[in-house]
Amino acid sequence: MSKDNLIEKMLPAIENHLEVIVERSNKNNNRTGGLYDMMSYQMGWLGEGSGVTARGKRIRPLLVLLTTAAAGGEWEIALPAAAAVELIHNFSLIHDDIEDQSFTRRGRPTLWTTYGIAQAINTGDAMFTLSHLAMLDLEYDICTSIVLNAARILQQTCLKLTQGQYLDISYESREDLSIEDYWPMIEGKTAALLGACTQIGSIIAGADSQTSEYYSTFGKSLGMAFQVQDDILGIWGNAALTGKSSASDLINGKKSLPVLYGLDRGDAFAQRWALGPIKADDVYEIAEQLEAEGGKSFAQEATVALTDQALNALEKAQPVGEAGLSLSILVKQLLDRQS
Amino acid sequence: MSKDNLIEKMLPAIENHLEVIVERSNKNNNRTGGLYDMMSYQMGWLGEGSGVTARGKRIRPLLVLLTTAAAGGEWEIALPAAAAVELIHNFSLIHDDIEDQSFTRRGRPTLWTTYGIAQAINTGDAMFTLSHLAMLDLEYDICTSIVLNAARILQQTCLKLTQGQYLDISYESREDLSIEDYWPMIEGKTAALLGACTQIGSIIAGADSQTSEYYSTFGKSLGMAFQVQDDILGIWGNAALTGKSSASDLINGKKSLPVLYGLDRGDAFAQRWALGPIKADDVYEIAEQLEAEGGKSFAQEATVALTDQALNALEKAQPVGEAGLSLSILVKQLLDRQS
Repeated sequence: MSKDNLIEKMLPAIENHLEVIVERSNKNNNRTGGLYDMMSYQMGWLGEGSGVTARGKRIRPLLVLLTTAAAGGEWEIALPAAAAVELIHNFSLIHDDIEDQSFTRRGRPTLWTTYGIAQAINTGDAMFTLSHLAMLDLEYDICTSIVLNAARILQQTCLKLTQGQYLDISYESREDLSIEDYWPMIEGKTAALLGACTQIGSIIAGADSQTSEYYSTFGKSLGMAFQVQDDILGIWGNAALTGKSSASDLINGKKSLPVLYGLDRGDAFAQRWALGPIKADDVYEIAEQLEAEGGKSFAQEATVALTDQALNALEKAQPVGEAGLSLSILVKQLLDRQS
Repeated sequence: MSKDNLIEKMLPAIENHLEVIVERSNKNNNRTGGLYDMMSYQMGWLGEGSGVTARGKRIRPLLVLLTTAAAGGEWEIALPAAAAVELIHNFSLIHDDIEDQSFTRRGRPTLWTTYGIAQAINTGDAMFTLSHLAMLDLEYDICTSIVLNAARILQQTCLKLTQGQYLDISYESREDLSIEDYWPMIEGKTAALLGACTQIGSIIAGADSQTSEYYSTFGKSLGMAFQVQDDILGIWGNAALTGKSSASDLINGKKSLPVLYGLDRGDAFAQRWALGPIKADDVYEIAEQLEAEGGKSFAQEATVALTDQALNALEKAQPVGEAGLSLSILVKQLLDRQS
């Protein structure tokens, strides 16, 4: 009950703060309402299919606020940072969707399919900028050295995001990959930003460097566990197995952890993979083959190990109050999800 | 002589500092050498055609350093800011070239035509991030409140850049534009960043707010004059008149200032424009028509007025030493150029 109360207070505050920031895209220049509209579409506020589902789960801003509270700070002060990480996440989705040529996101057309590649690239850039501007708003409530520290962590995280994305794009055309190529890629693409959320959340609360390091490890490990879980659902989740091409990583040829495991083994799955694109009709059988070779259990064990790592780090950070409890509940919810 | 000495000292220092920053793209992750290579290509250091011409003129970082010196500071301290603005400029070129589907830049293939759209978008994002990280390096030499101020000015400038680019893209498909639509677009696309260079340069030197306002006006007016001059060369420059389609704004259908002037008049030029794309064979005659209707002299007068505005603001800022002299010489060189 108490957990729900805290998160239920945070979610509308996050949404309000995001709106205040995104509105700035139309503040200096009264001709740029269209830019604001494109951002509002991406944020799930505008256009066909807008609403709660189109917004995503707002996991990253929640992680910031819960960590600030769990580390003994006032979560309201961290709202600029919470907005900043959610805008970074959405900026990267806008550009990733163009780079991956994805047509749908959260059940609706991606930004670039609706507004064209040129406007979508530029809208992503504007959102990226607004994110960093949002972070600098922390200055109104906390001392400048902490603000600069938070800004630097966010920037370094963005560099890691682009490094991870560089690897992801370059992996598409490579056939010589193995499991060891996987971790640096998801560390950049997924784990770095979740680690930044918890690290920044804790430094806003004034945590010492050891504690903020624990929170950082918590976020990073959670991010890796989350991504591996995503990989499992991408092959053995309900949507993936029904053969809808957009839902199955096998059909999309994605080099996820179970696939790399299968390729490393070099058995029947690897031989089938080498023959070229997998069709919807074959997806069930090939998923079964990969499971029989141990690809699913390998990934499940990785998720369990990473989750343990995350919860251990969280314990060492000694979170307080209902926010601390909410963080561990959030971990379990994220990893128990079926979609 | 003395002017050359100062700029000749600054240019290699800028190049060195840029290299130090760009190398960070491969620092945290030893698999990302390819990302570093793409940035080096864009910066003119690597690949076919690399060298001085491929680097561009480095006007923006020079403006930062000269302003810091002219406002009484040590220009070496401003090197992180100088690198930051040049990286912002190149980030925006990478993305603009994709958005405009431009095939060449500074006499060589654009990044996206060489490495593909996906990698080019992501490389631009990485360069954007490195730029902001570079700016935060100011912290080692000056107080945090000035660093935060410089970071905020740069972020707000990036927002204006994306607003200007939004207008530019949306203007492509509009036939109802007039001269008044022109200024907000180039204010974002060109003037904002030049204004940020001189404003940031002066605050690093510790200038008071009135003086840094003068420097900001100087940079902005210079940027507008520079863009209008570019528009003139884009129609009546040697390369444009020879009918090379990539060099003539008439063939590209660009709604530059002289074109908008002609459209506002609604005479023979406007009637020809309404008939659709202009071919290389017709470009000389149509340029002459626009000149006869006053499009060229209108733009030339605007350049003169904006240049006066820039030089007046510079005078009010009371620049000192050879850097001050170099700034006025730079203005004249930029506006006397023929390409």
